[in-house]
Amino acid sequence: MNDLEARVQNLESRVRALEDELAIHRVIVRYGLCVDTGDAPRTSEVFAADGVYDTDVLVMRGRAEIEAMIRGDRHQGMVGRCAHQIGPAMVEVSGDTALAAGYSRVYLAGERGIGIYRVSVNRWELERSEGSWRIRNRVTRLLGHDEARAVLAAGLDAVTR
Amino acid sequence: MNDLEARVQNLESRVRALEDELAIHRVIVRYGLCVDTGDAPRTSEVFAADGVYDTDVLVMRGRAEIEAMIRGDRHQGMVGRCAHQIGPAMVEVSGDTALAAGYSRVYLAGERGIGIYRVSVNRWELERSEGSWRIRNRVTRLLGHDEARAVLAAGLDAVTR
Amino acid sequence: MNDLEARVQNLESRVRALEDELAIHRVIVRYGLCVDTGDAPRTSEVFAADGVYDTDVLVMRGRAEIEAMIRGDRHQGMVGRCAHQIGPAMVEVSGDTALAAGYSRVYLAGERGIGIYRVSVNRWELERSEGSWRIRNRVTRLLGHDEARAVLAAGLDAVTR
Repeated sequence: MNDLEARVQNLESRVRALEDELAIHRVIVRYGLCVDTGDAPRTSEVFAADGVYDTDVLVMRGRAEIEAMIRGDRHQGMVGRCAHQIGPAMVEVSGDTALAAGYSRVYLAGERGIGIYRVSVNRWELERSEGSWRIRNRVTRLLGHDEARAVLAAGLDAVTR
Repeated sequence: MNDLEARVQNLESRVRALEDELAIHRVIVRYGLCVDTGDAPRTSEVFAADGVYDTDVLVMRGRAEIEAMIRGDRHQGMVGRCAHQIGPAMVEVSGDTALAAGYSRVYLAGERGIGIYRVSVNRWELERSEGSWRIRNRVTRLLGHDEARAVLAAGLDAVTR
Repeated sequence: MNDLEARVQNLESRVRALEDELAIHRVIVRYGLCVDTGDAPRTSEVFAADGVYDTDVLVMRGRAEIEAMIRGDRHQGMVGRCAHQIGPAMVEVSGDTALAAGYSRVYLAGERGIGIYRVSVNRWELERSEGSWRIRNRVTRLLGHDEARAVLAAGLDAVTR
């Protein structure tokens, strides 16, 4: 391999890293836009088929359980009035897996105007499958929850190894 | 074209896509910083000359109408006390046009401290002109507005085609 | 230098610019995750050794003063209940220095639920040292503070030169 070819190979690796980082930000943000439109299959596709979504109040295993939550009265009653805004987050990619750590907020419009419904810390595990990044595991804990500090610290460790 | 030249050409295309994605995030965020300093011409330049800014309460067509809103007593009275924070958003670029969908928030400092003034969903159409990305159309609707869900869903469709 | 080599060199420069922009977003966001875990040395490393953190109420010069704030009762009493969320921001890189301007928010969980504790404007000066971007100077002012508009305007000027 000559010198120029080595430089091209180095660039290919760096461009792939940049593409992966942006793709992962996009997929974690995409959950919010999808869930706020109330579209269950579109939202669940952000997760791997056997992906786990581990929240304060409910652990959902696999897309069917995630879709059940989205189709439920509680969530559907908030569609059009809720905004799931995800980030800022830090991302660490390693081949076909990645980790991310960061924040999320849910806003809700009600009779008294728009308020903060939830602010949470998050740790995501992601995988590349058939060319697309998907969430394999998302742990989210409400700010002030007993486990919030540990979730954030574990996430931070993961993305700054 | 030899193999190495093809790899360089492929890289050029991918780097251009990354540059465009970051540039579009920058221009939609820039609106917020500009409007919060109260500088009307600087803010309106984020839009194309005939750009449309379609809000709940007012549709502004062209830079002069956008500048009139910024120069108005209502907005000037909030400068130094308001923060227009835009994102997270998803971006889809296609040549010299692009679409984006996502959230925005306005915070306002008043006598009782800092509160949420608005949380909105947004759909942006952008165009590249003379090497710079500008907003051709921004539709924004307050969370809870009758049209909020449709604006978000249309935006999500646009960025995930 | 032949044509292909010139194209590779151009790509190297553009990829470096993209890497720098993402790295700077990462380091300003990282402050928040670190400070929210309460880890003083990890947080102070986001700053240059002689970095300055200039807030409304306190100017900290060098890592020892930043660590003292983080180790203090006031901050430690909020760990697990506070979320320092940074961005959106705009970034301008120039060689081994960079400037950024944008927003930050602090949320706090208390007995009455989660509320907004602070919303601020920020101007960052950063430097690359031993291959890593660090904050040399961060000026942050609460929304509504007498200096908030000037800090934001100076930051915006810096990133849009």
